[in-house]
Amino acid sequence: MIVIAIITSTGVNPDQIPVSLLPRREGCENMPGIKGASDYSQETPCRPCLQINSKSQCVILLVLTLLIQEPFNAEQPRSALISFYVTPVDLFYKRNHGPIPVVDDRERFCVDITGLIQTPKKLCMRDVRMLPKYNVTAILQCAGNRRTAMSKTRKVRGVGWDVSAIGNAVWGGAKLADVLELAGIPNLTSSTQSGGKHVEFNCNSKIMIMYISMPLPLNRDHGYPLRIIVPGIIGARSVKWLDSINIIAEDSYGFFMQKDYKMFPPFVDWDNIYWSTRRPQMDFPVQSVICSLEDVQFIKPGKITIGGYAASGGGLGIERVDVSIDGGNIWLEASRFQKTGIPSISDHESSDKWAWVLFEITVDILYSTEIVVKAVDSAANVQPENVRDIWNLRGILNTSWHRVQVRVGHSNM
Amino acid sequence: MIVIAIITSTGVNPDQIPVSLLPRREGCENMPGIKGASDYSQETPCRPCLQINSKSQCVILLVLTLLIQEPFNAEQPRSALISFYVTPVDLFYKRNHGPIPVVDDRERFCVDITGLIQTPKKLCMRDVRMLPKYNVTAILQCAGNRRTAMSKTRKVRGVGWDVSAIGNAVWGGAKLADVLELAGIPNLTSSTQSGGKHVEFNCNSKIMIMYISMPLPLNRDHGYPLRIIVPGIIGARSVKWLDSINIIAEDSYGFFMQKDYKMFPPFVDWDNIYWSTRRPQMDFPVQSVICSLEDVQFIKPGKITIGGYAASGGGLGIERVDVSIDGGNIWLEASRFQKTGIPSISDHESSDKWAWVLFEITVDILYSTEIVVKAVDSAANVQPENVRDIWNLRGILNTSWHRVQVRVGHSNM
Repeated sequence: MIVIAIITSTGVNPDQIPVSLLPRREGCENMPGIKGASDYSQETPCRPCLQINSKSQCVILLVLTLLIQEPFNAEQPRSALISFYVTPVDLFYKRNHGPIPVVDDRERFCVDITGLIQTPKKLCMRDVRMLPKYNVTAILQCAGNRRTAMSKTRKVRGVGWDVSAIGNAVWGGAKLADVLELAGIPNLTSSTQSGGKHVEFNCNSKIMIMYISMPLPLNRDHGYPLRIIVPGIIGARSVKWLDSINIIAEDSYGFFMQKDYKMFPPFVDWDNIYWSTRRPQMDFPVQSVICSLEDVQFIKPGKITIGGYAASGGGLGIERVDVSIDGGNIWLEASRFQKTGIPSISDHESSDKWAWVLFEITVDILYSTEIVVKAVDSAANVQPENVRDIWNLRGILNTSWHRVQVRVGHSNM
Repeated sequence: MIVIAIITSTGVNPDQIPVSLLPRREGCENMPGIKGASDYSQETPCRPCLQINSKSQCVILLVLTLLIQEPFNAEQPRSALISFYVTPVDLFYKRNHGPIPVVDDRERFCVDITGLIQTPKKLCMRDVRMLPKYNVTAILQCAGNRRTAMSKTRKVRGVGWDVSAIGNAVWGGAKLADVLELAGIPNLTSSTQSGGKHVEFNCNSKIMIMYISMPLPLNRDHGYPLRIIVPGIIGARSVKWLDSINIIAEDSYGFFMQKDYKMFPPFVDWDNIYWSTRRPQMDFPVQSVICSLEDVQFIKPGKITIGGYAASGGGLGIERVDVSIDGGNIWLEASRFQKTGIPSISDHESSDKWAWVLFEITVDILYSTEIVVKAVDSAANVQPENVRDIWNLRGILNTSWHRVQVRVGHSNM
């Protein structure tokens, strides 16, 4: 069962969000408590370890220019990503399609629940806080993670990402089912009396409609004051800065549902694309990535530890992670763990089923070679060997075997 | 959400099961209404189209010898498999680990619900019939489907199957949740007061413990009078001839849960196997198979229609079926349908989410070549290109790209 939660925090009580992370600007515009596009001047400073991707400008630059229109997108270096089982908020990747809204009075902030229901409802922060609070450890992964590598096979369109457009957080908030019950929709309902079968999450606030991804103490970057988290599903569906919930009869007509984040076959390009022929992508497939080595990595001959992450969609566990140090001929099984050093048993009740699994194996590397990783999930799904077979014009869901080149030198390095 | 149902029929009301399919022997042994091992003399005759695999003996032979101990296993020729969206009962594959029990008085047949519950319960046929009846169209697929082909890469142990150890049926019966409610376990319970967290299904009846697979009007071959159906899960978990339900704290210790139907990596063989290191296989991965062509198939040059089936586990839809007529370089998208000729839209409310999808494409074949099929499920999972990477000593879950050789001749054929 997929847990869909309305998130007010990540691991901390919303009342404990550090004041320094809250916006300080005054006034309001179109909605109570919400302001228009941010000028980024109040963002967390751009940490040296957070890499700004090609379509974004660094926050430090933004502070100089004071006004920027480009969405802010950033990821951390791959080696830092696996230092923590729960990704620190500052290191969690940032993915935006537009400027970041400012909410200066969380207590006055409300979400409209409308559409095919008997009685539309205004949901305020105090209503959410009255509901039972649940915590879930879950990854968010941008559908475009590893896009840069896919583009090397054949050019794709989209923000370029290395392998760190993913993070693992402890999310805290109310269950969507409980929220909908406040609006008169009983638990386990598959259709409302007025024919509502889908739930659409919107964020309009002076900007475009946004479906975006990220967390911890839920700050502006990550959707403050409210966001939706849908574990096991591509990050694009975990809507930040939620301002309305709409009960509708069919799939949402929103841009990011209908004209983006769909998986096309390799033979479809921009001159023969028909968006309506594909469904919006939801679950993501099994993925694994080597993070302890850059591509290309120079090392001395001898023992090295290869580490990284693996994850699958839809709540499936990671059954196995295989590593090859000869380009994919002979495979060795890596150790898997969740939390710090606790061996991971897929689908065991002790496992965090929506979270990632970190892996590690120590090997002897004497000659220059290609190191490869591939994972198997608990449904025995595997990663595709080559990008060629999953190439798609938007460059989403690159889950091909992850490869890094290692160059062995015998001099001082 | 996985529907787990206790099945009394497939598509027909249990009261309408044709009398000719019911067993006619008298008497009873260890359980009310149930007899020991069948002598197969009352089985449906072996149809010419049902192929008996290497570990079984044909029923016609059995009738001659009157007593056989070998389990009966059979599949239909691949070309017949896709003639029907709902597989006729006579053509549904048969998979057994032992003789087939005889139940001569369904009305006296009861199932014990025991284990970690407050009040053990005897569940009789009339209790099941009082519950709301649900129908679900779902495939069953033997985990060993396509094992014969896997054995060509490297020898595996197990019953040899071509591509027809799969079928699609309309199953009718009660929901397990409703049955458990009769035994005092409320819906949505994750643990009983006594610590029960797993449900074990048993069939002991004078034979070994069985976890087996098949249906329609639920006859002896397919589990009469009661079986469990777990859609989206390997057939081995859909226990036939159910005679007890046991609420337990941990995974079942049953042989087929602990010492069989587990997925090992290619580097594990019978001399280095440790069963406890792997979990019991449940969901199956995405699969597709060409059924309209034998391997090798001789044809005249010109247009041919390539057809087959595709399915994924865990309730995931089939997003795409790709066919190549040049060994896997260039891919074409096949048409997909469910029911008769109705285009299939994965995850649409009109789709049978647990059922297979049939596919079809017409192509021009002028020269001898290799035809290949691969499917993509709605989580963007893909099939592995080569058997080598998924080979496992028990030969389960061969979902590699399915290939057939076509020899084009220009003479009369």
